[in-house]
Amino acid sequence: MSKKNRIRLFTDTPLKIGEIYTANENQTHYLKNVMRLGLGDEVFLFDGINGEFESQILEIGKKTLSLKVNKKIFDFEKSPDVWLLFASLKKENTDIVIQKAVELGVSKIFPVQTEYTFNAHLKPERVKAQVIEAAEQCRRQDVPEVQNLQNLQQILSNWDKNRTLVYLDETGSGETFAKASSKMKAPVAFLIGPEGGFSLREFELLKSLSYTLSVSLGKRILRAETASISALSCWQAMVGDWK
Amino acid sequence: MSKKNRIRLFTDTPLKIGEIYTANENQTHYLKNVMRLGLGDEVFLFDGINGEFESQILEIGKKTLSLKVNKKIFDFEKSPDVWLLFASLKKENTDIVIQKAVELGVSKIFPVQTEYTFNAHLKPERVKAQVIEAAEQCRRQDVPEVQNLQNLQQILSNWDKNRTLVYLDETGSGETFAKASSKMKAPVAFLIGPEGGFSLREFELLKSLSYTLSVSLGKRILRAETASISALSCWQAMVGDWK
Repeated sequence: MSKKNRIRLFTDTPLKIGEIYTANENQTHYLKNVMRLGLGDEVFLFDGINGEFESQILEIGKKTLSLKVNKKIFDFEKSPDVWLLFASLKKENTDIVIQKAVELGVSKIFPVQTEYTFNAHLKPERVKAQVIEAAEQCRRQDVPEVQNLQNLQQILSNWDKNRTLVYLDETGSGETFAKASSKMKAPVAFLIGPEGGFSLREFELLKSLSYTLSVSLGKRILRAETASISALSCWQAMVGDWK
Repeated sequence: MSKKNRIRLFTDTPLKIGEIYTANENQTHYLKNVMRLGLGDEVFLFDGINGEFESQILEIGKKTLSLKVNKKIFDFEKSPDVWLLFASLKKENTDIVIQKAVELGVSKIFPVQTEYTFNAHLKPERVKAQVIEAAEQCRRQDVPEVQNLQNLQQILSNWDKNRTLVYLDETGSGETFAKASSKMKAPVAFLIGPEGGFSLREFELLKSLSYTLSVSLGKRILRAETASISALSCWQAMVGDWK
């Protein structure tokens, strides 16, 4: 199997060369039944602390599987200090936002309740599985944290003022991304409103805060999930680790 | 109804103030049964030639509905001359790519067959409906053209050398987007490979052409639909009409 298509699993326990990692039930099912791996086959493991390792299947049980950690292939590398706050959306669009945010290297994801938010009930277990899967696939070394759904005002009242909060203003009165990007050094967070937009009250609140920055992404109206991906992509390309 | 939530329909016939537009069966169903509009209600119409107009429902028939074109609200505006070529994907991901490309203002969309492409059977009628719906929702004034699926080599053999073809190189040997953006003035086209990447032969071919430019979007592996959205967003922000 080429490195390109390597199988990559996140372990929530620290890894060490020479030691054994015991895959959990889901991972075992995936390796054994989905990928049909056998004894001696290679699996890449990363722990979000020490980096990424080559391992080999040593033993296959009914519901567990053990892997011998052989050699380190990548040092741990932290993703940039950029957060995504997004007004929760319908299930399939929330799935898109979360998956793409992981690929685009965010370090924290906050589903947010705003005045015009569709109130999605996110299942923390499901979201956690999604985030891990996306991290495994996109080959990042860390797994971003996902917060529980919180009210926007509540989040703002606890805000660390050293982190710039960039909110997307679809009324068109924000700065262009290119122009505003010089004020977006990490730590930064992007806030994407719901399909209905922010309420007037929310706009007033956001405008009044010292640590916020209003940005427009052109004249066409982007769906919330598109705006999330666009903002993070532009940030990575102009300020973050795509540079 | 606020302008924010206005109902907006694309008409494939040119509009003129004072004249009557007759909605087709799908549009009639949408206005009558989905949006539950009645006589005198306002609908925004755009024709992709003359611009966007306010109209009012004048008559409601069983399968058609007539609208009186009252006043122009926006002049026609062409979207930037940027194309998206993408290796066709599984249905739901192709849907995402097409919808987002419309929102992000492309003028032409080419599904492309590459060596490692999943061969999706795109139904032209379905794609056309998707593109129109996305254009209606994002409030652009024109509707991008969608080409039929073509082979990459076939597309390249007919290429107009004045159009820069930017291909995403996930092996990491491309330039950064920020650096390469100065060479991406319109007309430009982005080419996004399939999940399996371009073949070695395709890479060699792309590299050998005078009008191509290779770009990398960081170290994390982006899914093909993410890469499409990211590349178009970065282009709009650095070169296109988000500036």
